[in-house]
Amino acid sequence: MSMNFYEQYDERLNGEERALVARADDFCSGGFSQAVLDAFNRGEAFEKSWIDTWAREGFLGLQTRKDHGGLGASYLCKLRVAQVMAEHSFAAAFAINNLQGSVTRLSKTGTDVQIGHLLERMRSGEVLGAPAMSEPEAGSDLGALTTTARRTSGGWIINGTKSWVTNGTIVGCVTLLARVAEGAGEGEIASFLTPLDGDHGLAREEILVPGGRSFRLGKLTFTDYFVPDWCLFNAPGEAFKTSMGSINAARVHVAAMCVASLRAALAETARHGVTRRSFGQPLNGHQGWRWEVAEVALRLEAANALVFRAAAVIEKNGPAVTLAAQAKKFAVDTSIWGIDQCIRAMGAIGATTLHRLSMLYAETRMAAFGDGTSEMLLDRIGKNLAKDYGAKDL
Amino acid sequence: MSMNFYEQYDERLNGEERALVARADDFCSGGFSQAVLDAFNRGEAFEKSWIDTWAREGFLGLQTRKDHGGLGASYLCKLRVAQVMAEHSFAAAFAINNLQGSVTRLSKTGTDVQIGHLLERMRSGEVLGAPAMSEPEAGSDLGALTTTARRTSGGWIINGTKSWVTNGTIVGCVTLLARVAEGAGEGEIASFLTPLDGDHGLAREEILVPGGRSFRLGKLTFTDYFVPDWCLFNAPGEAFKTSMGSINAARVHVAAMCVASLRAALAETARHGVTRRSFGQPLNGHQGWRWEVAEVALRLEAANALVFRAAAVIEKNGPAVTLAAQAKKFAVDTSIWGIDQCIRAMGAIGATTLHRLSMLYAETRMAAFGDGTSEMLLDRIGKNLAKDYGAKDL
Amino acid sequence: MSMNFYEQYDERLNGEERALVARADDFCSGGFSQAVLDAFNRGEAFEKSWIDTWAREGFLGLQTRKDHGGLGASYLCKLRVAQVMAEHSFAAAFAINNLQGSVTRLSKTGTDVQIGHLLERMRSGEVLGAPAMSEPEAGSDLGALTTTARRTSGGWIINGTKSWVTNGTIVGCVTLLARVAEGAGEGEIASFLTPLDGDHGLAREEILVPGGRSFRLGKLTFTDYFVPDWCLFNAPGEAFKTSMGSINAARVHVAAMCVASLRAALAETARHGVTRRSFGQPLNGHQGWRWEVAEVALRLEAANALVFRAAAVIEKNGPAVTLAAQAKKFAVDTSIWGIDQCIRAMGAIGATTLHRLSMLYAETRMAAFGDGTSEMLLDRIGKNLAKDYGAKDL
Amino acid sequence: MSMNFYEQYDERLNGEERALVARADDFCSGGFSQAVLDAFNRGEAFEKSWIDTWAREGFLGLQTRKDHGGLGASYLCKLRVAQVMAEHSFAAAFAINNLQGSVTRLSKTGTDVQIGHLLERMRSGEVLGAPAMSEPEAGSDLGALTTTARRTSGGWIINGTKSWVTNGTIVGCVTLLARVAEGAGEGEIASFLTPLDGDHGLAREEILVPGGRSFRLGKLTFTDYFVPDWCLFNAPGEAFKTSMGSINAARVHVAAMCVASLRAALAETARHGVTRRSFGQPLNGHQGWRWEVAEVALRLEAANALVFRAAAVIEKNGPAVTLAAQAKKFAVDTSIWGIDQCIRAMGAIGATTLHRLSMLYAETRMAAFGDGTSEMLLDRIGKNLAKDYGAKDL
Repeated sequence: MSMNFYEQYDERLNGEERALVARADDFCSGGFSQAVLDAFNRGEAFEKSWIDTWAREGFLGLQTRKDHGGLGASYLCKLRVAQVMAEHSFAAAFAINNLQGSVTRLSKTGTDVQIGHLLERMRSGEVLGAPAMSEPEAGSDLGALTTTARRTSGGWIINGTKSWVTNGTIVGCVTLLARVAEGAGEGEIASFLTPLDGDHGLAREEILVPGGRSFRLGKLTFTDYFVPDWCLFNAPGEAFKTSMGSINAARVHVAAMCVASLRAALAETARHGVTRRSFGQPLNGHQGWRWEVAEVALRLEAANALVFRAAAVIEKNGPAVTLAAQAKKFAVDTSIWGIDQCIRAMGAIGATTLHRLSMLYAETRMAAFGDGTSEMLLDRIGKNLAKDYGAKDL
Repeated sequence: MSMNFYEQYDERLNGEERALVARADDFCSGGFSQAVLDAFNRGEAFEKSWIDTWAREGFLGLQTRKDHGGLGASYLCKLRVAQVMAEHSFAAAFAINNLQGSVTRLSKTGTDVQIGHLLERMRSGEVLGAPAMSEPEAGSDLGALTTTARRTSGGWIINGTKSWVTNGTIVGCVTLLARVAEGAGEGEIASFLTPLDGDHGLAREEILVPGGRSFRLGKLTFTDYFVPDWCLFNAPGEAFKTSMGSINAARVHVAAMCVASLRAALAETARHGVTRRSFGQPLNGHQGWRWEVAEVALRLEAANALVFRAAAVIEKNGPAVTLAAQAKKFAVDTSIWGIDQCIRAMGAIGATTLHRLSMLYAETRMAAFGDGTSEMLLDRIGKNLAKDYGAKDL
Repeated sequence: MSMNFYEQYDERLNGEERALVARADDFCSGGFSQAVLDAFNRGEAFEKSWIDTWAREGFLGLQTRKDHGGLGASYLCKLRVAQVMAEHSFAAAFAINNLQGSVTRLSKTGTDVQIGHLLERMRSGEVLGAPAMSEPEAGSDLGALTTTARRTSGGWIINGTKSWVTNGTIVGCVTLLARVAEGAGEGEIASFLTPLDGDHGLAREEILVPGGRSFRLGKLTFTDYFVPDWCLFNAPGEAFKTSMGSINAARVHVAAMCVASLRAALAETARHGVTRRSFGQPLNGHQGWRWEVAEVALRLEAANALVFRAAAVIEKNGPAVTLAAQAKKFAVDTSIWGIDQCIRAMGAIGATTLHRLSMLYAETRMAAFGDGTSEMLLDRIGKNLAKDYGAKDL
Repeated sequence: MSMNFYEQYDERLNGEERALVARADDFCSGGFSQAVLDAFNRGEAFEKSWIDTWAREGFLGLQTRKDHGGLGASYLCKLRVAQVMAEHSFAAAFAINNLQGSVTRLSKTGTDVQIGHLLERMRSGEVLGAPAMSEPEAGSDLGALTTTARRTSGGWIINGTKSWVTNGTIVGCVTLLARVAEGAGEGEIASFLTPLDGDHGLAREEILVPGGRSFRLGKLTFTDYFVPDWCLFNAPGEAFKTSMGSINAARVHVAAMCVASLRAALAETARHGVTRRSFGQPLNGHQGWRWEVAEVALRLEAANALVFRAAAVIEKNGPAVTLAAQAKKFAVDTSIWGIDQCIRAMGAIGATTLHRLSMLYAETRMAAFGDGTSEMLLDRIGKNLAKDYGAKDL
């Protein structure tokens, strides 16, 4: 009997949550699965209509409070739903769960006015949301953020450019970080719910990543763009801290999806290994082949165990900074390496449009850049080495 | 606040077990720690008297049933005790816990006569035990085993050579696998408790491994060696299956010790990183240095998470063949690689007798060979890939 | 002063050959460079017209004998020309040089009739050629080849399917391996120059590899397809040996192109490292960044040195089987790994259509499959270990 | 027919030099080979008498000018002689060639007085020499050097501690770097031939590295130690530059020995692979085993090709800073990794005193620290990336 790969997670879900995971699985295993692959093979993003369907199923409100019309699911449940989708497409899982995150944050910390204006429209998929943090010249260095928000009558005037916005080509509202001051580089950072339906002052451009179109990465340039008073989301000085507060959960979330994408690639390879023959026997009959793929399997298990370990600490609000950084770094590295190994083990056929591996590979590669690059994570871990590991009394 | 590295394990121990771990820690952190290092630096095994002291503390009966005078501790408790020692010396932890395993097996499956003859003497350290499975020409391939046991009046006549016996230079009794038949390569395999106090027919030789003297590896050659009837431990046809039955637990046990040795090496390196200076700043102030050691830390956490995952399945008697093989392969690889990285990060001083890292490194390297070589483990995992990972419905 | 990366090669070229390399460089650095990148970014193969231009420049006849109208260049010169193009696109370099190879083989070993029919048309680019060896179910295992050639009046009747044909969507003539016998799996292997202008019996299909469209991989299915008598290229029993005879040169050739693609990626990264800033300094100012990219540089140099070593042995007709396999395996691995590292070091911007790295990466990945997969090469090297390295007297 | 691994080097030697290499080979393959292994297995340095024998053969004067009584061999010849010895012991090769280097430097740049005092005694092995550069707190950071040389009547007074001196327990004369000033950290750096036969003011201590005793690493502490006037070797301000001038050659030299040690380990493994059987066939009959060892072979060839490439540039006085750093980093990494792989491929027997692999492994590991640690080399390469690889016109 084979192991249940996600057993650790599922043991912690309640019955309602397990049903949600099962429902998500039905959705993803249906027409969606082939549709995202076909779109990738055409060099396009998957059709936006899948987001509408997903929203109609209620999944954009997965973690939204039940009294706000959401499903009220836990963090681990969210991870499992994301994993279920990531087995079919990492980019779709990443992008669609990103939408869900915006709804959740609004439900949890929005003002009544903000919730009244936007929550139902976002939960239903009418208005799609995204955080907008990175800037072209600042990359992941939020300290170098130059977008400004200037006080004006009844609201604020935004100037600046946001880059690498997930779903940037279709979102209707971004949560935007800006310095509340005249000059670039000065003033404290606030965040604004920024509806993108203004009359003028907004330019939108797709950032083209071959193989990564389903992220719908966008660049948004704001020129004297007006947002009304009610849109202030985090007061000046609060926004940076708040966005850091959720970063550990986000990192482990990405790590969990990476693990799922690799598991899917491995499953495809393992099946291929018994059906495809070479030199007179199934691929799996060649010892060298077995060893190569076995190494993928064991590192996958290590990544999964680490992701779950970090997720369990996050769930208990434990000290997760180091573990979350480690889980993301290791899961991303392992997935990218592992899917690549799977493609090689499949032979050239594994690289063609007949299989999902090229897609999973191209998509997970982008995971190394978001929510802390691998380099930033190493530095974060490295700075705490003595504190985390050096204690004499451990 | 730093993370508690062994938190996952300790959460599952009861109060009595936690006290045992603490007591083991006191022992290992005392004079024992420097003594094993000094012996290594002299190119010798640690003094046998430490085994006597450990036995007097009752630890050779750690898992022995309480009604047999043992401490009745759980598998996870055994792991933690072994880890506590492996932070000071992998070889000592491996060798001493090997002795404990022989007592446990006797307590669990020995006949009343066997228990009467041997249990108390083994638990007290008077007679030290070891399994004797490998043979010079067969390596890990038990199917090629050639030692024979021939029926004679009142007992059996043993002929053959056993190699790689842990503590082989000091044990007083080995559990020996032999074919019950005239000819080599024929007959079913039985096992015999084999007291080594016979008058003649036994030659004992140390297998010299530079840096690995504390394993006290021995080669035992039996020539018409007599063992009495009561010594039959596993009946013909049962011995192979029985020794396979405990192999998963043994593999995870080795993996757990590897993880602990690496943790100790990392702790030493992390402390060195804040005290040792180069080019005008502490080592930890150099970004490249931080990244290198951070990578060790994160792979260590992945190994630890995987080891615990496998241990938890073993504790529940779940299907652990694949997970145990994966945990051992990954933990061994990670520890060897990681301790090496630590030595390099320390600089040349890290390779000298002033630090424990050279010892931990030389010792953990031997972990790749016992209880299934890395190659055998890969093959084991590889053969089950389709079953473990290929199911469509996962 | 910087090193001349290709110095080793260039020292061995004569003046005429150096001029050819320079001319190829002019061509590739011109409009061609952006055109292949744009095509990749659109998910298409580069325009076929570039092949026509290249042919008009005479380069399809690079190694063709001068008395056949060719340029008569040496093997090392061919490598350098291929490298010059591979700095802009690995796939284009691979595919275009593949065309050149067909012309060269015809010039060297064709009959007068074959040369009369085809040489000038192939050299001029009017009829493009390719070898057709692999089959869908046989992969790289030529022993399992099932295509048949049956004797008929005035020629042969071909039945079978050839897969992974480079330029398969545009070639006008393939050199096809087939068994000269009735039944599949029987008979000796011959090769046939097979013009693809027959009336019927040919189906052509593109094999879709995302990111690899410029290889124009094709599948050709022959159903009772007629080829005339003059088309027999290698007599039955000769074809396999002949195709093996050139495999070492082909492997080193691929390795040389991989090295050049990585060098181009490294050049782009090195420049980016001094212009792009993060956290207050150029990327190159971060020690961790420097170490990561420096490791790429040094492995690139190792790959280049090994490729040149193998090329030098081939040029002298020395024993190159092992060295050629090693050079390909190492250069392919190093390039794929290295370009990936470069993309990561560039940051997310390195993965976009603004840079050439995503293209070079997607293209070089395919190099692992052709001319001996990495697995086949390891096996080839592995079988000769004792002969190549085990001699006592070495 | 097998390849000649050292062919590239040997092609460049003249007949006289080839005879020297052959003579060195005779010496090393004789009793010396087993003697160094036996000493290692006892945890000791090889007997000093082997140095005397080697000196009597004239090899301490290998590169010494012929008119000074030396053999006048070239740099490549020195490399080959060192490789011949490194196939038997890396540490012995490193340490003995270090002695030779001191004689060579004296022959090339010493004053007549210095040559008169010391050359013949050093060439004959009566007085052994070594550079003394590193200090306990400064490591490889020469800028932090604190040893001082104070002018006194008829000479200089030395104060300070030199660490990591090769052959430090037996040398009779060190070339010592010191600041010519009163205070630590001030003054320009000079070097002094420092005979260690002074009456007082010298304390000598062995630095104990398990497995590395044959380096005879020593720590020398000078307290008001007097050296006469004639001992000034490099004038203040010249010593640092001079020691940097030979560093590239030294790095490639170490790299060449690493390559040779790995080649010897691979040879032993390749032979073992055909004689040792497991699971019913020779080790080499297992595909996984073949692939693992084949990967070692191919990286060995890459390292060798890179070392030779760097050596060829040094021989021509070309720009070798980057190439030498790359060759050392890659050869050291490859050898350590590769010998480890060989030990694993041999099975546990490969780790015992019956084979030379444990010794070669323990010894080559120390190569990572001398003549520029791997980290310093990466930084050196990293700082020049744009200059070496970024040029548009390359």
